[in-house]
Amino acid sequence: MKQPLRVLLLLVLLPLALRAQEVMFEAERPGWLQKAEQYKPNLQETIHRPLHTVRLVEDAAAFQGWKAVEALPMDSVYERSFKGQSGVVLDFGEHLTGYFSFSLAALRGTSDAPSRFRLTFGEVPSELATPFDPYPGSLSRAWLQDEVITVMHIPDTITLERRMSFRYLKIELLGSSPYFDFRIADLQFRAVTSVGEMPPALAAGTDPLVTQIDSIGLLTLKECMQTVYEDGPKRDRRLWIGDLYLESLANVYSFQNHDLTKRCFYLLAGLCREDGFLYSNAFETPEPHAQRGAPFLFDYSLLYNVSLYDYLQATGDRATAEDLWPVAKRQMDHITTYLNDEGLFDHQTATANRWWLFVDWNDQLDRQASLQGIMILAMKRTYALAQQLGREGEVTQLPGLIKTMTNAARKHLYQKGTGLFVSGPDRQVSYASQAWMILSGVATKAQGKRALRALQTQPNAVRPGAPYLYHYYVEALIACGLTDEARTAVVEYWGGMVKKGADTFWEVYDPTNERLSPYNFFPVNSYCHAWSCTPVYFIRKYPEIFQR
Amino acid sequence: MKQPLRVLLLLVLLPLALRAQEVMFEAERPGWLQKAEQYKPNLQETIHRPLHTVRLVEDAAAFQGWKAVEALPMDSVYERSFKGQSGVVLDFGEHLTGYFSFSLAALRGTSDAPSRFRLTFGEVPSELATPFDPYPGSLSRAWLQDEVITVMHIPDTITLERRMSFRYLKIELLGSSPYFDFRIADLQFRAVTSVGEMPPALAAGTDPLVTQIDSIGLLTLKECMQTVYEDGPKRDRRLWIGDLYLESLANVYSFQNHDLTKRCFYLLAGLCREDGFLYSNAFETPEPHAQRGAPFLFDYSLLYNVSLYDYLQATGDRATAEDLWPVAKRQMDHITTYLNDEGLFDHQTATANRWWLFVDWNDQLDRQASLQGIMILAMKRTYALAQQLGREGEVTQLPGLIKTMTNAARKHLYQKGTGLFVSGPDRQVSYASQAWMILSGVATKAQGKRALRALQTQPNAVRPGAPYLYHYYVEALIACGLTDEARTAVVEYWGGMVKKGADTFWEVYDPTNERLSPYNFFPVNSYCHAWSCTPVYFIRKYPEIFQR
Repeated sequence: MKQPLRVLLLLVLLPLALRAQEVMFEAERPGWLQKAEQYKPNLQETIHRPLHTVRLVEDAAAFQGWKAVEALPMDSVYERSFKGQSGVVLDFGEHLTGYFSFSLAALRGTSDAPSRFRLTFGEVPSELATPFDPYPGSLSRAWLQDEVITVMHIPDTITLERRMSFRYLKIELLGSSPYFDFRIADLQFRAVTSVGEMPPALAAGTDPLVTQIDSIGLLTLKECMQTVYEDGPKRDRRLWIGDLYLESLANVYSFQNHDLTKRCFYLLAGLCREDGFLYSNAFETPEPHAQRGAPFLFDYSLLYNVSLYDYLQATGDRATAEDLWPVAKRQMDHITTYLNDEGLFDHQTATANRWWLFVDWNDQLDRQASLQGIMILAMKRTYALAQQLGREGEVTQLPGLIKTMTNAARKHLYQKGTGLFVSGPDRQVSYASQAWMILSGVATKAQGKRALRALQTQPNAVRPGAPYLYHYYVEALIACGLTDEARTAVVEYWGGMVKKGADTFWEVYDPTNERLSPYNFFPVNSYCHAWSCTPVYFIRKYPEIFQR
Repeated sequence: MKQPLRVLLLLVLLPLALRAQEVMFEAERPGWLQKAEQYKPNLQETIHRPLHTVRLVEDAAAFQGWKAVEALPMDSVYERSFKGQSGVVLDFGEHLTGYFSFSLAALRGTSDAPSRFRLTFGEVPSELATPFDPYPGSLSRAWLQDEVITVMHIPDTITLERRMSFRYLKIELLGSSPYFDFRIADLQFRAVTSVGEMPPALAAGTDPLVTQIDSIGLLTLKECMQTVYEDGPKRDRRLWIGDLYLESLANVYSFQNHDLTKRCFYLLAGLCREDGFLYSNAFETPEPHAQRGAPFLFDYSLLYNVSLYDYLQATGDRATAEDLWPVAKRQMDHITTYLNDEGLFDHQTATANRWWLFVDWNDQLDRQASLQGIMILAMKRTYALAQQLGREGEVTQLPGLIKTMTNAARKHLYQKGTGLFVSGPDRQVSYASQAWMILSGVATKAQGKRALRALQTQPNAVRPGAPYLYHYYVEALIACGLTDEARTAVVEYWGGMVKKGADTFWEVYDPTNERLSPYNFFPVNSYCHAWSCTPVYFIRKYPEIFQR
């Protein structure tokens, strides 16, 4: 073809090609969103009241340096003027998510002026003891749950519109009239969750610490199961694919609320990008929408498929899998975008092109090996899904790609001498790399066992930064048959949070640095976080390991 | 009667007598409250938007040291990210009372976190330039109009529930996500007042400063005319008898919304004490109620009758006057409570027994002569009311009391040598005493003229602390035929506020101390206050004095 003709053809076809890409799933998306709406759960509501007041006591031995010590019975709050009680901290006894209201009653005189309160809701004691301002954090200051309100008249019952997530509540009186006096007559919290009944108890005789880990995991999951699988009910309160994956795994072995999982799959599919790739997260309000303009989160888009495959195995709901197959299939098209000739993922170029490779909260982590593993696992599950749906003809490229990428990983990312998998130009050794090489099947079971054991001898190995990666590490231990080590990891890591007084499992937990925060201010961390609930999955899926 | 029998009779009758007192007007009160409800006005609503931004500039020559200088057009606010604009001050161009709402729109990315704002509404520039905390004032801190709000999603339109009263609005951004950007798309204020149309313009050729004083007085009154005559729409937002009196006077010569006056009379009567005496003030929400338990405000209870008399003269509404006559009559019963044998009011014993004698915001003021005058005036008006209603037979004690008290005042409170009226054991000379001795008719017109002229030669005379007393002073000047002095007083005092940039007249104004506050913090003063609106009354009732 002559050059001018070629250019002409390009000029004609390019817009058409772009247009074709833009409209991918245009016909299906509204229906998917409709199904997401159809499976939206009704929230269960329960009314809770504080149990007693607490004193916040500085204590180097307590988590983050602060503990809440039971102080006065609630009568002492309700029966006295509130004027002398400003700063009181109330303990609701458990982590709750929902809507707060309180009633004020006159004690003496007539309310002749408005009153001003600051209400601070905290998931952990340190949140109420750490000044929020000047705010040093990198996320919005507004995530912190302190609200300043003006009450125009007393008596009145005030309900905060904002949903709160907390166990402890501090009430400060910032202003009131000297000409009248009042008391708090009632304090109520309408807690919400889409979870109804709790699952069966663990086997009798289970280690009490394991039982506690399981209970706290269940509470964590319950609090995050709202009208979607939220990542954290305090912060960010939205559906991320990574959290969906872990929450739905735990759900299969606990609440079995599969409709919520289904809703989330449909919601994400219904909000996919114009080119058919999935956004990493979705918001429900004011109407369902994705975080448009955010970097493309590659590993999460792949985990959608892994999760959909798991869902089909757990439920046998073939109709949903069929319905969403086009989306799953589409996610495979990015596998080859930054693959080199040998089949290694070029994670540096991908990152340079604004692909977000998450894997873990850890700036030090080299993500090459992890991504290679996630891609391989996702292809395997997607192909298995295709086979179950009789659609393997649509993804014929996958078996070859799996083989190529597996070989490339074995060739370039495996150190035969140490038995460890390495990542990146500096050949970094990390928990993440070992876990994903194992979960993807790049490592044989024997290689995996050797790698994980060798890892313990590497003091400089990059450790997990958050419970999210810890999950994959434990899963890898189990996959290699290192069941004692898996048990120990769960008992030590999540049990560590239990021993430090966790009511729900935390977003970030480094036993050596309790104030670690990816956001430069630990009070803005989430202390009830979906991705930390997975001991529920391990303990209940593998009773032979944990319930003994 | 034998002694034991007498005691027995007393024991039987006393509770009955007390009970009879307690239930006074028990039958009438619900009907009065119902009528108050019936005459509740519909509020007129208008939508306002800010005109431009202003810079707050410290300037010793400006009122309270701060002036607002026009800065940027509103486009500059609406069309740019708000992130660089935190702290912007908007000027709505006039004093408004009502409900604020604003719309936020996304500029870039998706709102992935809540945003936190502080909105501060100020009637005068200094309110926005003076830190509120730590709060040194004696009234509730919550009167200050700064609200901290959390906006969970953008786009959104947020409406503050609290009614605000202001001209200037400062908007501060206290927190937002670094991952998205937004702008303010709209700012709206739904202003409310029960006033519809403005009254006719003043006579052509009226002094421009008088015209300005009249306009600002009208705006002040308009802002205070809500569903009752409020004292101040920012603070205290309620019906006081003293404010009702002055507002209804001004209303007669301006808006002529007599139904509002009627509503207020009924509301106060419907909420009278069990013993039939009037509370000094009333609240409308959550349901109509008086400030129970507050000290009995004697002078205000008396001014109810003066005001009811004036209302009848202005409207001819005899039915209302008939209806409320029992209440008016009842207020007379306290006249003799602390009257000595000579007919002088024992203000010290009354105060010791928790009677509040207001007269003016001025701790230095001796209130003996003022109260003596107010009592005499109230009796005169009450008797005149009785005569018009053919009920003078029910208050036959009044003419004698008026005479006795007038004589006592002339004998004990008048200094023949100086021609001044004095008050209290220290024979204090004050504006208040002269004004009330004149308005009550204790002073003849010639004596009054002499007293008011002599007052000017007394540098230590206690001056008015607030516009409320200034009203009575001007009224006294006019009553004595000192019309030039009356004009000068209005032009200098209220004109002084005009020259200092008042949009509405202030609760407190001492030309020599702009930061004077009865509450120890000038930003909590009301800068749109009912009792300061009365130039409207003077200018329009006495055109020959003011409109020339």
